[in-house]
Amino acid sequence: MYVEVFVISKMLWYFAKGVSCQVNSCEVKRTAESLVVTVQVSPEAGFVVVTESFCSDTAVSRKMDPRHDQRGAPCSSPVCVHNPHLEALEDDILYHFSLGTGTHDLPAMFGDVKFVCVGGSPWRMKAFIEYIAAELTMEDPKSEYPNICAGTDRYAMYKIGPILSVSHGMGIPSIAIMLHELIKLLHHAHCTDVTIIRIGTSGGIGLEPGTVVVTKQSVDATFLPKFEQVILAKTVVRNTDLDPSLAEELLQCSKELNQFETVIGNTMCTLDFYEGQARLDGAFCSYTEKDKQEYLNKASEAGVCNIEMESSVFAAMCKLSGLRAAVVCVTLLDRLKGDQMSSSHDILHSYQQRPQTLVGHYIKKQLKSKAGCSFK
Amino acid sequence: MYVEVFVISKMLWYFAKGVSCQVNSCEVKRTAESLVVTVQVSPEAGFVVVTESFCSDTAVSRKMDPRHDQRGAPCSSPVCVHNPHLEALEDDILYHFSLGTGTHDLPAMFGDVKFVCVGGSPWRMKAFIEYIAAELTMEDPKSEYPNICAGTDRYAMYKIGPILSVSHGMGIPSIAIMLHELIKLLHHAHCTDVTIIRIGTSGGIGLEPGTVVVTKQSVDATFLPKFEQVILAKTVVRNTDLDPSLAEELLQCSKELNQFETVIGNTMCTLDFYEGQARLDGAFCSYTEKDKQEYLNKASEAGVCNIEMESSVFAAMCKLSGLRAAVVCVTLLDRLKGDQMSSSHDILHSYQQRPQTLVGHYIKKQLKSKAGCSFK
Repeated sequence: MYVEVFVISKMLWYFAKGVSCQVNSCEVKRTAESLVVTVQVSPEAGFVVVTESFCSDTAVSRKMDPRHDQRGAPCSSPVCVHNPHLEALEDDILYHFSLGTGTHDLPAMFGDVKFVCVGGSPWRMKAFIEYIAAELTMEDPKSEYPNICAGTDRYAMYKIGPILSVSHGMGIPSIAIMLHELIKLLHHAHCTDVTIIRIGTSGGIGLEPGTVVVTKQSVDATFLPKFEQVILAKTVVRNTDLDPSLAEELLQCSKELNQFETVIGNTMCTLDFYEGQARLDGAFCSYTEKDKQEYLNKASEAGVCNIEMESSVFAAMCKLSGLRAAVVCVTLLDRLKGDQMSSSHDILHSYQQRPQTLVGHYIKKQLKSKAGCSFK
Repeated sequence: MYVEVFVISKMLWYFAKGVSCQVNSCEVKRTAESLVVTVQVSPEAGFVVVTESFCSDTAVSRKMDPRHDQRGAPCSSPVCVHNPHLEALEDDILYHFSLGTGTHDLPAMFGDVKFVCVGGSPWRMKAFIEYIAAELTMEDPKSEYPNICAGTDRYAMYKIGPILSVSHGMGIPSIAIMLHELIKLLHHAHCTDVTIIRIGTSGGIGLEPGTVVVTKQSVDATFLPKFEQVILAKTVVRNTDLDPSLAEELLQCSKELNQFETVIGNTMCTLDFYEGQARLDGAFCSYTEKDKQEYLNKASEAGVCNIEMESSVFAAMCKLSGLRAAVVCVTLLDRLKGDQMSSSHDILHSYQQRPQTLVGHYIKKQLKSKAGCSFK
């Protein structure tokens, strides 16, 4: 009933950390296209056999898209799906985007996408596309950008040139639905070399409010760098590593901008905003101020700089699909000093601009640099 | 690290189900206002000591609101918060509603609320308030209903008379944030005898698409009726029972309407729409059609009629706060026959009307019946 799987790298990591567990059997089979790992861990402690199958990205990509080899620059990196069943679908309906392969020409609409920015709020993602359009002077900054997902109110999506801006709502399940459909969309559109950045808000730990945190590792509520995905009632543990070089490039951009403080640190990702983040101001609270401070101090000792609600599944899914990914969140308050968002509307609004300013600068720099190397 | 707590009733339930666990100590302390249960379960199996404190609803309600005893009808049931820290807050900012006790007169705005309907989509919740206004001929059905949460795009909220309609986005974390702030809002507004109903969409198991399911019990991906809340890195298991008499009343309403099939059954609540619901059409899928069918058949054998993503935390939080609660979801497809939402837009739209038609009929009937007994 309570199940955990240790895939190879994570098993070593757990052993290194001294977490007690007993591996009864571990079998690795390599086929032409897959690496199948079967691990049986401590069944007497409630663990059971689970099989995780990892297809080779290149193999799957070729299998899923026979046209791929004829497309794109040499050594370009595709957006990978890991699902042999998609081949059998005549029309893949991306339900929560109100888009589909049978109703929309996805390669024509999205084939040129190189940067995807995602964030919780639909308003903020519309503001981002307006901001980046003005920054890049790609279009009249006063023009209207239509919501590509206008047929639904689940998510909002905007595009200008190679930049896509998509909202994802709040929490792991909401962003996971969006990412499943976004990864399929980018795959169906034959996109290559895509960088994806989540721009968001968060609670800081021991940082001046307004500080921007670029995530090094996304950790769970026990400060471990993992995301647990339940599949057929079994829990599979996924890696939450983000791209370290992209994080460093973003930090460098902040230095160039010199407008606000930016740090690289761990981000704790929780399933709840109130009890799940040790807040004292929810409808329910069974712990004391002292308990809260002890918990947040432990988080701080584990390298946690900020807390939000989407980074773990974002990191896990982007890694699986071969997307270069970063998480850039501003801290709206210092959780060691309080729980309520009591700063003025104007101050909170100005803080929320910071991730988009930083990511806008990064994209501009990348496009300029690529233009110098005959980009596109 | 992997922790579970068995609070008294759940412990008995687990033992009855034959789940193996060893209780090393269990201590119950009763104070004037609280029941504190400390349980130490099988630490060698990874479980640790956890304390769950349950305050008596009435005691807390009185403590939180000294005016309560002077308000409301005799024997009326308040909306309970369980958080002694709220007393110390001068201004309680309901951040994701863009409302607060310091900026809004919540009793004047919401004190008359008796029915709250919640659903994922902001459009659908606006359509619901327009529908119910027309049904009750309470106002000109062509008039505009302003979004009370217009200062944010996280949630949308509409009100007419004693009926509040609130969107909650997708997934457990998103609805949990909304419910924390809604429960505080209803508490601050001194509401009594509130009924709350989630109207939503779902995937059915072995049911004709368009069937409406009124949830008996919300179960997790292992078919167990529980919600796991992580608090200070420890997992607390909460009850997901819904009000059985309310479910029966809703079923009776469907019989009176005689427009569509309605059943009472268990609802599986998952953290993911694709891999978490055994879909074959996500970006990632490591299992076969046969694995999927076996899993859904097991769910069916456990009494699961439909699958959605919010009912477990909804049931748990409503129960803790003393709200009479129901979940009414239409099935958009039969998951035994497919995964994609391939019905026409018009058919899907007509299915989505059904929960609001049913709940509208229920509210109308209740208001008529209460009017007969000098309601308000």
